[in-house]
Amino acid sequence: MSAAESTSGGEPALARIRLVLADTIHPGNIGAAARALKVMGLRRLVLVAPQRYPDAQARAMAMGADDVLAAAQVCTDFGEALAGSTLAIALTARRRDLSPPVLDARDGARLAVDEASAGGEVAFVFGNEIAGLSNDAVLRCQRVVRIATDPGFSSLNLAAAVQVVAYEVRRAAVAVELPPPARTPLATHEEREAFFAHLETSLRQSGFLDPGNPRRVMQRLRRLFERTQLESQEVNVLRGMLSAWDERPRRGSQRDPESGGSGED
Amino acid sequence: MSAAESTSGGEPALARIRLVLADTIHPGNIGAAARALKVMGLRRLVLVAPQRYPDAQARAMAMGADDVLAAAQVCTDFGEALAGSTLAIALTARRRDLSPPVLDARDGARLAVDEASAGGEVAFVFGNEIAGLSNDAVLRCQRVVRIATDPGFSSLNLAAAVQVVAYEVRRAAVAVELPPPARTPLATHEEREAFFAHLETSLRQSGFLDPGNPRRVMQRLRRLFERTQLESQEVNVLRGMLSAWDERPRRGSQRDPESGGSGED
Repeated sequence: MSAAESTSGGEPALARIRLVLADTIHPGNIGAAARALKVMGLRRLVLVAPQRYPDAQARAMAMGADDVLAAAQVCTDFGEALAGSTLAIALTARRRDLSPPVLDARDGARLAVDEASAGGEVAFVFGNEIAGLSNDAVLRCQRVVRIATDPGFSSLNLAAAVQVVAYEVRRAAVAVELPPPARTPLATHEEREAFFAHLETSLRQSGFLDPGNPRRVMQRLRRLFERTQLESQEVNVLRGMLSAWDERPRRGSQRDPESGGSGED
Repeated sequence: MSAAESTSGGEPALARIRLVLADTIHPGNIGAAARALKVMGLRRLVLVAPQRYPDAQARAMAMGADDVLAAAQVCTDFGEALAGSTLAIALTARRRDLSPPVLDARDGARLAVDEASAGGEVAFVFGNEIAGLSNDAVLRCQRVVRIATDPGFSSLNLAAAVQVVAYEVRRAAVAVELPPPARTPLATHEEREAFFAHLETSLRQSGFLDPGNPRRVMQRLRRLFERTQLESQEVNVLRGMLSAWDERPRRGSQRDPESGGSGED
């Protein structure tokens, strides 16, 4: 995935995926759904017979996704909402006697992105907060998606369900690109070995290392520091610390033997 | 994963994962977070210095997750919230000069479940709705998780972010078990072949099939019906339909040639 393809609105498959909310009761959920879509790069919201819309609560919950909300298509009829779609996926947790094939959200999102990438038009269809989708509505879809929840409490909020689906759709459509870590370069082999040599010398001078058997402690310290993938700048800081300690006069055996000795298994 | 392990509260790793909300502004988000957790089988909510709590709005948004909300631990100090944790994961979208290693939500959830499964105690840490987490708070965590969003609009609602993380944690901890489809058994080979033979005979009698070249149409119909994985009961319905048509007298060539002939490429 090139950088251009992954920028805002630049993912063509996402532009062919719409979200249909049928008979929504709470306008706040419509606004929250608009935000949930936009944050994942989706923009097409279709409302079938919303019970209260437009509404100030929808706008309040949209929080920066006002454009998605303002562009939402409002239909009176379910068929109108699916017009042109080649794949409609119903979200429902309820088990039905007659049902299209059921997928989990991840597989459903992959199927949707595959179809949209091939040029198809995809709709994810959500029912309302209380009744969900009717059997008739579900049977006008070609697949069902069921979001895995705790079997003892499956009451997923409508906007939260939209967020999970939108997240999985983005995850399926756009390669994850984490920002490059802002770090100084890693230490080289030579820098690391110079640090370990310095550490061992300092620990010998301080009396911490058992001169007879320094190996086990040094192995533990090596394991710890190697695991961190030391950065060059960190090696400088650590060696500066060692030098500061090196310059302090050794005070014989005044170290408290209780406070962490070099005793090893 | 056995059925017993996947039932409510029965997943031991989930019981060792807590969610920490620091300095939350809107009590509604605390309630929504409680619901988002419970729906994914998580139950441990820790609140650090919430700005308004307890609050009626938190209870209203919990919607059935009142138990998780009532059991929430309220701390004044961030350190108290992390007490006993062996792995703390900070949620932040902001890039920082000094940062723990950054993972995406899926990998972060896997790491968390691995640590919790090995007996560790894991915390996911969320900052507040406006300022997020301080650098100091982030640096008290061992990893950062960043939820992939549209780079042009990354304003993920707090409760929505909790829902995505809780979803990924459940997904990593519990094998997806879709309910067995409520269907009658699939048709046997013999039932399917008898149907295709019946279909071909009916189509010949009706005059739809070109007697000179019936193969291509029959191949298309075979492809269509085989793809559906016909059920035994469906074969009965289809053959009943064919029989009803078979009994109608043939009316020569009265069929309208415009309304779908058997012409094939």
